[in-house]
Amino acid sequence: MINVAVLGYGTVGSGVVEVLNTNKESIAKRAGDEINIKYVLDLRDFPGDPVEKVLVHDFDTIINDDEVDIVVEAMGGTNPAYKFAKASLERGKSYCTSNKELVAKYGPELLELAKSKGKNFLFEASVGGGIPIIRPLNQSLTADEIMEITGILNGTTNYILTKMSKEGLDFDTVLKEAQDLGYAEKNPEADVEGYDACRKIAILSSLAYGEHVDYEDIYTEGITKITDADFKYAMKLGYTIKLFGKSKRVDDKFYAMVAPFMINSDNPLYSVNGVLNGILVKGNVIGDVMFYGAGAGKLPTASAVVADVVDAAKHIKTNIMTIWSSKKLVLDDIKNSRKQFFVRVEGDKAARLEEIKNVFGDVTVISLEELKDEFGFITPVMSEAEYEAASLEVSGIKTRIRIESV
Amino acid sequence: MINVAVLGYGTVGSGVVEVLNTNKESIAKRAGDEINIKYVLDLRDFPGDPVEKVLVHDFDTIINDDEVDIVVEAMGGTNPAYKFAKASLERGKSYCTSNKELVAKYGPELLELAKSKGKNFLFEASVGGGIPIIRPLNQSLTADEIMEITGILNGTTNYILTKMSKEGLDFDTVLKEAQDLGYAEKNPEADVEGYDACRKIAILSSLAYGEHVDYEDIYTEGITKITDADFKYAMKLGYTIKLFGKSKRVDDKFYAMVAPFMINSDNPLYSVNGVLNGILVKGNVIGDVMFYGAGAGKLPTASAVVADVVDAAKHIKTNIMTIWSSKKLVLDDIKNSRKQFFVRVEGDKAARLEEIKNVFGDVTVISLEELKDEFGFITPVMSEAEYEAASLEVSGIKTRIRIESV
Repeated sequence: MINVAVLGYGTVGSGVVEVLNTNKESIAKRAGDEINIKYVLDLRDFPGDPVEKVLVHDFDTIINDDEVDIVVEAMGGTNPAYKFAKASLERGKSYCTSNKELVAKYGPELLELAKSKGKNFLFEASVGGGIPIIRPLNQSLTADEIMEITGILNGTTNYILTKMSKEGLDFDTVLKEAQDLGYAEKNPEADVEGYDACRKIAILSSLAYGEHVDYEDIYTEGITKITDADFKYAMKLGYTIKLFGKSKRVDDKFYAMVAPFMINSDNPLYSVNGVLNGILVKGNVIGDVMFYGAGAGKLPTASAVVADVVDAAKHIKTNIMTIWSSKKLVLDDIKNSRKQFFVRVEGDKAARLEEIKNVFGDVTVISLEELKDEFGFITPVMSEAEYEAASLEVSGIKTRIRIESV
Repeated sequence: MINVAVLGYGTVGSGVVEVLNTNKESIAKRAGDEINIKYVLDLRDFPGDPVEKVLVHDFDTIINDDEVDIVVEAMGGTNPAYKFAKASLERGKSYCTSNKELVAKYGPELLELAKSKGKNFLFEASVGGGIPIIRPLNQSLTADEIMEITGILNGTTNYILTKMSKEGLDFDTVLKEAQDLGYAEKNPEADVEGYDACRKIAILSSLAYGEHVDYEDIYTEGITKITDADFKYAMKLGYTIKLFGKSKRVDDKFYAMVAPFMINSDNPLYSVNGVLNGILVKGNVIGDVMFYGAGAGKLPTASAVVADVVDAAKHIKTNIMTIWSSKKLVLDDIKNSRKQFFVRVEGDKAARLEEIKNVFGDVTVISLEELKDEFGFITPVMSEAEYEAASLEVSGIKTRIRIESV
């Protein structure tokens, strides 16, 4: 019998307990042993909930119990999660977590500690909710050099953008609706400003390239400036707009960013809608592979956490090799990365086209019947630095959105 | 150093050699040891090819060399592959194969043999080419009871159907073109009659449900009867037509089949086009997850084989648990499975509607301007047996295609 302690009885933690109970038999078969929930840690009481029998309020009870083999953490944040993770691994307990902040910040250190103890630090649920992506990157795509990762990594923003796209609504209206439905937090900053996606692409990139990508180094732009008018242009162009976490290897340089991108229907991420997530990985031999599913939610996330528990149980005495060195991967300045840009500018198309072409070169112009006093254009491929310099020479720019080439 | 022997220097075998050479350094890092190609077995000679140095014509050289740790087979067919696999495992060599015939027929026996020797029988490339699906099913989706698998598992037929759909061409024209491009074999039977997809869904279903699904038990229908007219109806209905390998758990019964299905754009498989493959897996807690990528091709397939080599190298002394018992999974007769059907029938809509409704119940009728002497209808949900009985009472049925509900 493998004894598990679950830290935190919120959405994900209670989901983990539910999944372990619902699929008890098949999980035991896969794990090769029965999984027993010995403790659930929470500061609150849950009168009448069956969890009461195993509920404790003090982490020391768990850490000092040598019968606990695996600690599952579903609390979020780095304090006290980091302390709990370190203590658990030091005492020879494997640690499975859905906590992206913890993994993005302390991943290499905790992996190293787990290795030195012959135990495991696992975090499938920290990116993409239920979608298997951490294990495939670590164990399936091992024949490839990973060249590029592009992910729709945040369900809240994808819900908002999808709704704006399909119903022609503006950002504030849809955000309000998402908040009412519980898809967005009251303080939506972490989602809509891209901070959540930033931590997730940092984790994926570290695993893909083998060295530590610091999320603080990643250029991050959210979706708060995207308007319903932008979607009108996008639609006319055959594009939609998605918030991407992206990283890319170009020759020996690495770029990473979080930003809204226009993409067309040839891109497999085009049809990843609503709260779903999708992650497109490009390898130098395998080409493109995509992983798609529920990026959040109680049971999908719990499914990924429990899959880690099964893996930890199967490897109760051996460390699963994970290549994520603490050596920092130096990202190149995104100013050097090259792409096309969609730009909206004030004024009359006929009057301004010559000026625009002088500055940006051979642009493709697009205008909408219903927006008389502005027009849009698509630039040639240029670096971010070149775009920035050019944009300073042109007045009345209302918006610029990067374009993803397929 | 881990010594590998590659059996067969055709498309996939030479791809394996190429991938092992191209990514030598990163593969060694992932495997924890250098991978050395000690032998390549082929009956042919390859004068001038660097492979000459390690080329052998006799399997005995390989089987009798105790330095060979891993045998990679990329020959196809069960003879002599089965003999080679058995001999390799018996001599304590792990065996990695892209051979779906071998895996579908002898999977449980060879897995059992590998386990008894503490070695591994791995076959990621046997389904979905480069797409990681075997390992995710075996190691990632372990918290779930798998309820359903639906896959576009054959690139040739998906290429043909996509081309028919986008260009309005008929089956024979597109097949000819696919043959000219090398996407379809001169004898295309294994692809277009669904036999290839049948073996693949048998493998996936066995892994998903843990017991042996015999591919000979699976109802299999190909795409040779699909016409350009069918696509015209599909398009008007907002559907497309895909060849699915499908299996499903309904209560305690299991169904499996290969057949063309109409699906709408809410289905993530809708946008899996051309030679690409996509596999949608439904778990009882995770919900839907999809895996997508190149289902065939030299390098993608070789990438999957080499990922198995890496896994075999990492587990050179331990068996990776795979749940696929030799106990046969008894499939229920698909006559009991329920769905809607799209039907085309000769004659005038106004004249025949009453008759059709009397037999099939409340159908939805659809007709096309350009096809005057026929019309189509969609049946209510009914069992295959009920459909069959009803269809005998109606004359002039030109086609029937199953409809996949999302």
